[in-house]
Amino acid sequence: MSRKLKIGFLGGTDEIGKNMTIFECGQDIIVIDCGMGFPSNDETPGIDFIIPDYQYLKDNQDRVRAVFITHGHEDHIGGLPYLLKDINVPVYGSSLALGIIQQKLSEAMVTGVQLNAVSDRQEIEVGRFKVEFVRVTHSTAGSYALCITTPKGVVFMTGDFKIDHTPTDGVPTDLARIAEIGKKGVLLLMMDSTNVERQGYSMSEASVCKALEQQFAMNKDKRIIVATFASNVHRVQQIINCAVKNGRKVAFVGRSLINISEIAKTLGELKYNDDDIIDIDKFGKIPHDRLCIISTGTQGEPMSALTRMSTGKFRNITISEQDCVLLSSSPIPGNEKLIYNVINNLCKKGANVVYRALDEIHASGHAFQEELKLMFRLINPTYFIPVHGEYRHLKLHKELVVELGMKPANVFLPEQGFLIEVEKSGIKKGQAIPYGKLMLDGAVAVENEFLLRDRKQIGEDGFLIAIVDRTPNEDGLYNKPIIITRGINVTEEYKEDLGEELLLDMNGGLVDDIDGPTAKQILRKLLAKKLFAKLKKRPMVLPIILD
Amino acid sequence: MSRKLKIGFLGGTDEIGKNMTIFECGQDIIVIDCGMGFPSNDETPGIDFIIPDYQYLKDNQDRVRAVFITHGHEDHIGGLPYLLKDINVPVYGSSLALGIIQQKLSEAMVTGVQLNAVSDRQEIEVGRFKVEFVRVTHSTAGSYALCITTPKGVVFMTGDFKIDHTPTDGVPTDLARIAEIGKKGVLLLMMDSTNVERQGYSMSEASVCKALEQQFAMNKDKRIIVATFASNVHRVQQIINCAVKNGRKVAFVGRSLINISEIAKTLGELKYNDDDIIDIDKFGKIPHDRLCIISTGTQGEPMSALTRMSTGKFRNITISEQDCVLLSSSPIPGNEKLIYNVINNLCKKGANVVYRALDEIHASGHAFQEELKLMFRLINPTYFIPVHGEYRHLKLHKELVVELGMKPANVFLPEQGFLIEVEKSGIKKGQAIPYGKLMLDGAVAVENEFLLRDRKQIGEDGFLIAIVDRTPNEDGLYNKPIIITRGINVTEEYKEDLGEELLLDMNGGLVDDIDGPTAKQILRKLLAKKLFAKLKKRPMVLPIILD
Repeated sequence: MSRKLKIGFLGGTDEIGKNMTIFECGQDIIVIDCGMGFPSNDETPGIDFIIPDYQYLKDNQDRVRAVFITHGHEDHIGGLPYLLKDINVPVYGSSLALGIIQQKLSEAMVTGVQLNAVSDRQEIEVGRFKVEFVRVTHSTAGSYALCITTPKGVVFMTGDFKIDHTPTDGVPTDLARIAEIGKKGVLLLMMDSTNVERQGYSMSEASVCKALEQQFAMNKDKRIIVATFASNVHRVQQIINCAVKNGRKVAFVGRSLINISEIAKTLGELKYNDDDIIDIDKFGKIPHDRLCIISTGTQGEPMSALTRMSTGKFRNITISEQDCVLLSSSPIPGNEKLIYNVINNLCKKGANVVYRALDEIHASGHAFQEELKLMFRLINPTYFIPVHGEYRHLKLHKELVVELGMKPANVFLPEQGFLIEVEKSGIKKGQAIPYGKLMLDGAVAVENEFLLRDRKQIGEDGFLIAIVDRTPNEDGLYNKPIIITRGINVTEEYKEDLGEELLLDMNGGLVDDIDGPTAKQILRKLLAKKLFAKLKKRPMVLPIILD
Repeated sequence: MSRKLKIGFLGGTDEIGKNMTIFECGQDIIVIDCGMGFPSNDETPGIDFIIPDYQYLKDNQDRVRAVFITHGHEDHIGGLPYLLKDINVPVYGSSLALGIIQQKLSEAMVTGVQLNAVSDRQEIEVGRFKVEFVRVTHSTAGSYALCITTPKGVVFMTGDFKIDHTPTDGVPTDLARIAEIGKKGVLLLMMDSTNVERQGYSMSEASVCKALEQQFAMNKDKRIIVATFASNVHRVQQIINCAVKNGRKVAFVGRSLINISEIAKTLGELKYNDDDIIDIDKFGKIPHDRLCIISTGTQGEPMSALTRMSTGKFRNITISEQDCVLLSSSPIPGNEKLIYNVINNLCKKGANVVYRALDEIHASGHAFQEELKLMFRLINPTYFIPVHGEYRHLKLHKELVVELGMKPANVFLPEQGFLIEVEKSGIKKGQAIPYGKLMLDGAVAVENEFLLRDRKQIGEDGFLIAIVDRTPNEDGLYNKPIIITRGINVTEEYKEDLGEELLLDMNGGLVDDIDGPTAKQILRKLLAKKLFAKLKKRPMVLPIILD
């Protein structure tokens, strides 16, 4: 029993997204979640996917025993196909999460993975760990907290959660079991920090139902389009219920929504009569006011159904004054502009658009302060580590539990890149491990550290290429260099002049009798200086010397 | 009196920012505001400034009589140096607005402009127009609504406003005069739509004072740094008052803050004893808890004082546990990520950071719904045009006044690019005029429409250059093409192979006996296809043929 308990944070701390945590004890490693991050044009231009760098697991793959999944959101499962392609270990999670994962694995052509569906309070023993799945409410069905019994004590990871007493499926957060676990003694609590800035309690999913009912009542004569996250199965259920109750047929739009709804229906997580659902291509005969379309695209994603509807480019759906569009969602920070573009465009087409600023047709899936306090009181841990949040969230979460009487010294702010060591006597920063962003650029992982820096430079300031031939012509003079630019704000005339100037300099001996690299250097500096004087900008300058 | 009244929207409608409106009657044109827009990496990569395209005014400059300024915010005055360089006409506005404008003109070396300071209720006659300046409250001092008497009737433009009954300087919105104007009859009301989504009343600036007091009390032992907009003179006043009351010296940080505070002090808009202010480079001897720094950088601007403090790169200010940073501001949409980066970095350095999510240390400068309704009731216009807002704001504003009894037909949603014609009998879309974004890229205005498209492509997917020499060597074969890439996720080895493949194709006759442009086309398609197959991306491909 002298083995150390080590915990490694590979993602989801000091950031929102790409959640991934590892537990290690002796020869056993288990992985909790393996999520996707959110690329942005400002920080990761052109990047399609970001997942945690799991090099440490590749280096220790014979010791990796299993992956445990808290729930089926992209930021908790999106990286799994990559991980499982490299390291084939069993995966444990709710039926819904596994259904979504199975779909992803099929698409990525990853086969032969053992997916094990668990039920509430089920315990899985893996090496030195025993992992119990404890039901929590969240903005997707099949969400679990994990109670991990280790040789050093019990670690409780909440996963993403809220405490909703009136969830759509009637299965609330398992407070009884959580209280029991807390009573037996918990060494360490690791808790979701996403909404730690928000006071009070989060709205129940049931309150969304009322708001939806009102909107359906106020828009009786219109076609109703509701946009929501595909994985928010309970929201989808409520929208379907509301539509059917109001005598409307329902059509699903958007690949992920169709896929997840199909999986959820098969698993009994989503319930509806097939008669109430119609194919999006076949609603031609149904009058506008008898129709409800459920769509993806709440984040203004350029290729999503809703965005294309807003610009008149989505199949047979033409937005007009006869439409009411409900955005039952909230923006992921950074997406605000894209989302407002979609809303503005829908408004321009005459639709009545209802979004968060106007009505509460969305409830967050993450616990507010009072819920966090309740969870903390029930678990009553010796140590506390806030997770799932940017640094400001983690820090605030620490302050919150200190207000509840926790000793500041017993709170540890997680650091990516370290395998912390947890003992009854304390937590210490342990050995350093590889960590970071594994970025997928189109089909290929990014390995060149300069790629993004280059993209930023050329994406903002453009580039200039000067092709310089150092072979003199029959008159003993040089030929005029070829100047090519893209993304630089200059005229053809300016480029001509620049070529002439350069030719003059060359004929004056600028690059005579110098080695290629030095000549390039001279040309680069000269051209960069000229461009800066003209533009007050620093485009990339690439001299190419033909010798 | 048969002259038409025409109004043109050159900016600030269907968008937030770059506000500019023109009024035209017979041979007279007047301009209201000339603001700057907000560039973004997603939409306008690399662009430094955006101002309204004022080609129509250049084309009619002999008819332009004057510019009237509602207040001194960048989105209302930022474009003035450019406009006045082209068209030298008198400018009317508050002393503070003109003070800020004068500074801008000096920096841009625009001289000889007649700047005329106005006082409350002052009337200026220009050609067929009479413009009265009516005091309103807003998040900068010296803010005015404009009551424009025209041969067709009175037009009331609110400018940016709120109805603050307890403003810092004791000069509230001139409701008495507004009521009087309304009573005499207003043909058209044009009203600020920025906060039309928000119910109720905006917080008074006075309430910020209380919140600041609390923060100063709770952070007695720390150095206090307050970040705010430089132009928010009343906020700066409150921060100074609070600091002095709490026995602290005040230091200004950030060029715009220092400049504007100096102007405001000279004009009597900002009041303090010089003894209470210290130079930022000389506070070494003053203990932390006797100091208050007022700083710019609330929007996470990369070069701002606050951002540089957060990364430890600002002069003599080192952030630590001894600091409390108050962000007395709200994010301009699109800036969220940058701002949160700054907050996270300040937290990492140990500072206690207080921002909007945690405390109400900011009040908006724009009217909420109940204030908009009050203004509407007082003015009681025949026609209504919502301005200063994105399309969704304008549409909602229309709905708001229709609820107040306005006929929908009497509300006109402004369209950029048209000179609408306003008559007692109605408003109609008039002649088309040039409009749009004038973008400044470094020092130069953008004229090439492909510039931004190119930047987006190369900024996300990179570029490939293939230099192909069509002169065969002594063996009758071609030399291997030179392949250069930047921002493309490929290895050197791949580029080598690509060059070899291309050489094989060339020696197989790929570009023999074809004219240059066609050969380029063939090479571009071939290379693009290969890159897409490899990367699933579409970099820019530039073949260069040396003949």
